[in-house]
Amino acid sequence: MRVAPDTVPDHPTRRAAVAAALAAHDADAVVVSDLTNVRYLTGFTGSNAAVLIWRDDPSRDRIATDGRYTAQVAEQSPDLEAMLARDTIGALVERAGAAGTAVRVAFEADAVTVGDFGELCTAVEASPVELVPVRGLVQALREVKDAGETALVEAACRIGDEALAALVERGAVAPGRTEREVARDLEWEMYARGAAAIAFETIVAAGPNSAVPHHRPTSDVLAAGDFVKIDFGAVVDGYHSDMTRTAVLGEPAPWQREIYEIVRQAQAAGRAALVPGAALAEIDAAAREVIAASGYGEQYVHGLGHGVGLEIHEAPGIGSAARGTLRDGAIVTVEPGIYLPGRGGVRIEDTLVVSDAGPRSLTNAPRALLIL
Amino acid sequence: MRVAPDTVPDHPTRRAAVAAALAAHDADAVVVSDLTNVRYLTGFTGSNAAVLIWRDDPSRDRIATDGRYTAQVAEQSPDLEAMLARDTIGALVERAGAAGTAVRVAFEADAVTVGDFGELCTAVEASPVELVPVRGLVQALREVKDAGETALVEAACRIGDEALAALVERGAVAPGRTEREVARDLEWEMYARGAAAIAFETIVAAGPNSAVPHHRPTSDVLAAGDFVKIDFGAVVDGYHSDMTRTAVLGEPAPWQREIYEIVRQAQAAGRAALVPGAALAEIDAAAREVIAASGYGEQYVHGLGHGVGLEIHEAPGIGSAARGTLRDGAIVTVEPGIYLPGRGGVRIEDTLVVSDAGPRSLTNAPRALLIL
Repeated sequence: MRVAPDTVPDHPTRRAAVAAALAAHDADAVVVSDLTNVRYLTGFTGSNAAVLIWRDDPSRDRIATDGRYTAQVAEQSPDLEAMLARDTIGALVERAGAAGTAVRVAFEADAVTVGDFGELCTAVEASPVELVPVRGLVQALREVKDAGETALVEAACRIGDEALAALVERGAVAPGRTEREVARDLEWEMYARGAAAIAFETIVAAGPNSAVPHHRPTSDVLAAGDFVKIDFGAVVDGYHSDMTRTAVLGEPAPWQREIYEIVRQAQAAGRAALVPGAALAEIDAAAREVIAASGYGEQYVHGLGHGVGLEIHEAPGIGSAARGTLRDGAIVTVEPGIYLPGRGGVRIEDTLVVSDAGPRSLTNAPRALLIL
Repeated sequence: MRVAPDTVPDHPTRRAAVAAALAAHDADAVVVSDLTNVRYLTGFTGSNAAVLIWRDDPSRDRIATDGRYTAQVAEQSPDLEAMLARDTIGALVERAGAAGTAVRVAFEADAVTVGDFGELCTAVEASPVELVPVRGLVQALREVKDAGETALVEAACRIGDEALAALVERGAVAPGRTEREVARDLEWEMYARGAAAIAFETIVAAGPNSAVPHHRPTSDVLAAGDFVKIDFGAVVDGYHSDMTRTAVLGEPAPWQREIYEIVRQAQAAGRAALVPGAALAEIDAAAREVIAASGYGEQYVHGLGHGVGLEIHEAPGIGSAARGTLRDGAIVTVEPGIYLPGRGGVRIEDTLVVSDAGPRSLTNAPRALLIL
């Protein structure tokens, strides 16, 4: 099944954006080694790789990987000359200094470990390379999605919508079934609709388990009266979807209706606050205030949302301590919750594109309390 | 379905082994932040955590995680007092220095990034904490599996064996089917037998694709005469299995029989070389020499194997440049291959326990060329 839109990522343009960002660090080149960033900049999906990008001369850009990936790198990154080495970062840094002239080479301080950095320092000791730490350089570019990326997240979200609808339709969320069975069925519905992978470990949390924000499915059996919280996503061409819905099995109790309605209103307030340029902390506050005003502030124990793209959690993080502002074209989740330990919990989550024309939700399963 | 053996990990004993290892670094305590190591030492499986272990006083040991995991950490790590913080490493290092007396605190240099280390240094500047980098401290302990761990890998391997047999039995590996369909069917067979998850992205590589060591399944269709290389695994209670088998669809051509037989002999030589105390590089050489002597040395582009446990790839790595020796009780793969670009490739891989009594294979699907 072909679910991916026919869009071809423009890797050279993405690398040019990285090159342009190097001026602010007074760097001549950068070695990118975070594998998701490497994929974003080159298309290469192997498990060992790094890419060297020059500020002024893209013809000197190189990708490095090891011998397992000779054929794959030629196919996925035909526009980049490949170097084969086990230590990809070391090989590219050495390459950057090979001309013998002084050169400032940036590296990802948020990806390179202290240990690898030590080895790198030893390796460049006698070379003209000066290492320059940078953080979040490529992640900042990834925050704003292009049309092709948005189409892929949208395709993944549609699979999620349709899979959940099919699951409910065939009565798979019902008393007597285990959390794990429901999770497997939902994943199967996603695969059947063209998901290349599951976005993260599917959460199906019933009854008291629904009060655990990140519960892993167990062999616990769904029972009448339970909240059932389902948090899940699909992957299409590397791009993720993320959605949470909470159902109740049978007639909801008053406390269930109450906290569901509060979360629903908080989530609507959070979605409405997704305005380009808004402070991230204020977006979080827009939803949090609704819950706090209802007296459940202590039972809402996490941030409001996060970016979604090649990673299920990426920049920007939307929480009370977040700095920075929301950018036009970002794709983020909005997912407040209330969790009552020992009783049950509710979370409602959508994945949305930020736009001047107002946020557009890519996940579109009904947000009203689902009574099964 | 209950597939996990009834073994309870002894986390306090594991932490005591870490404490004992601190003397060699002249450290008073260590903050472990690699999440797999945290799980190994505490049982906690959340996505944000670190653990503080003292050399001389386990009553001061602490686990840190954030507010999403309050209930989960109490359930999974009942024997450790939990601290709640978003910056778990920072909170534990601060805690270690809270008494005001000089203290040497080790940290995982192979897990902490350069960026996080910079923040940590700033945070401890005015405190009596001295940070001490250590590498592979917990990984070295994880190399040797206890009986419970071995039983879990064995359970995962058995699921793999049975899933592959069922897949073949029902004719799912056949001309006309796509690589992706075969991969999904195999994964489904593993789930049906109690796998909690898939160990890694299942590799099904047909025809020329089988010459790509780490091929990702595509919509390419299996055809008569193709090699079909299948590399896959299951997860049981966090522990992985790993096995590769290569089949041929219809009567094998002479070149297919030839390279299959060479790989089979090389793999047998590699398995036979799994002796406690053997140099890792010599184990690699035992298999490599068989392939090199046949003239295909250039077509064998990767190492011989790797440790398997809580991670699909862990210590020890078995390759030509590996240092160190094989330890009694380790669980490792042996997986030589020959890859002929544009034509096809063969890999045969087992997961084995190393023992003085000789290696014991946990994967037991037939190793003869499978003709379908």
